[in-house]
Amino acid sequence: MLGGTGPAGQGVAARLAAVGHDVVLGSRDPERAAGIVGELRARWGEPLKTLVPGTNPEAAKSDVVVIATVADAAIETARSVADQLDGKVVISMANGLEKHGREFRCVVPEEGSIAEAIQAAAPGAKVVAALQHVPAAALADLDGELASDVLVAGDDDVARSLVLDLVDSISGLRGFDAGSLENARGIEAVAAPLLTINLRHQGEATLRITGAGERRR
Amino acid sequence: MLGGTGPAGQGVAARLAAVGHDVVLGSRDPERAAGIVGELRARWGEPLKTLVPGTNPEAAKSDVVVIATVADAAIETARSVADQLDGKVVISMANGLEKHGREFRCVVPEEGSIAEAIQAAAPGAKVVAALQHVPAAALADLDGELASDVLVAGDDDVARSLVLDLVDSISGLRGFDAGSLENARGIEAVAAPLLTINLRHQGEATLRITGAGERRR
Repeated sequence: MLGGTGPAGQGVAARLAAVGHDVVLGSRDPERAAGIVGELRARWGEPLKTLVPGTNPEAAKSDVVVIATVADAAIETARSVADQLDGKVVISMANGLEKHGREFRCVVPEEGSIAEAIQAAAPGAKVVAALQHVPAAALADLDGELASDVLVAGDDDVARSLVLDLVDSISGLRGFDAGSLENARGIEAVAAPLLTINLRHQGEATLRITGAGERRR
Repeated sequence: MLGGTGPAGQGVAARLAAVGHDVVLGSRDPERAAGIVGELRARWGEPLKTLVPGTNPEAAKSDVVVIATVADAAIETARSVADQLDGKVVISMANGLEKHGREFRCVVPEEGSIAEAIQAAAPGAKVVAALQHVPAAALADLDGELASDVLVAGDDDVARSLVLDLVDSISGLRGFDAGSLENARGIEAVAAPLLTINLRHQGEATLRITGAGERRR
């Protein structure tokens, strides 16, 4: 996890460690990463034994790299370790959002989506968009059951399948194959209407896909 | 309904008529509209007694105008009756999509979304984006139960509320307030990943929103 100290990064890191993956929670500030990992392990104990803190370059040594910073920092973070990302699966989970009164609106980089901008910043990476809409609070509560669907888009078939399997490995999440990286545009842009619903309706909206079954292989 | 002879237009027209609204199914080709209305009434009978055929300009006399053409024609159709749309609620339901191999990708007009392009073509209209993702086949089967959620975006509060109520009036559809018309960008763009899921998974994907309740008023 690059920039994994925020709520969504912590949540994804904890969920992945809890199902047995080795996870490095990286940060520009490794002391902060160590503090967060200490808190998470104090809270959840044994299930997070495979979670360790590190710098972003240390985290970027992993086979699969998740860019978990806030949207503003995602592209720059990818660029800062671009050489290390060559040939690796890189998960982009950020949404560009701005709040305007009682709504959110999307903020789109020139490339069409943050995932595509990360791809441009790290051309050798196999970038896959995923996990944009999973509520951070629900992720971080390991005792709670997740029930959320994840649209997964990326140009490299093997990388996209690996991320779909990684998503499916987290109980309560289901991955759906949404096509090539260009389709990250829709995945990211729909975050604004979805989060606006949270401001204008009771409760907390979660995206679900009904009617779709197994991947055709 | 302008350009209501296609599958989605027929379905929305039939559903709205079946719950008692007076509906004019309009087309550039009024004979085709008459043929379609004849078929629909022959099939479903009495529930469609408030459905009549007409030209697009005749349909545009209604209080609420739905632009139901294919995406390529939506903006031009709005422009062709723009004077008649002044002050009216105009529903944009089109998605710009192109099929590339085993996926769909979105095609976005300069304005950011088809709904915003319709607004630019008919500046006096109160354009509301809605009904983008409801499966046409399910809409058209009046005996079948719908189970689909509809994101609704528009700048005019009264118009948006009216469309939310109109969506809610169709059994099995639920309207969610997704904010101003700019958020049509995400609503339209997510159609490409959603429809790609249909090509790559078993079954037919439908967008649902869980966890969100009543509108806050």
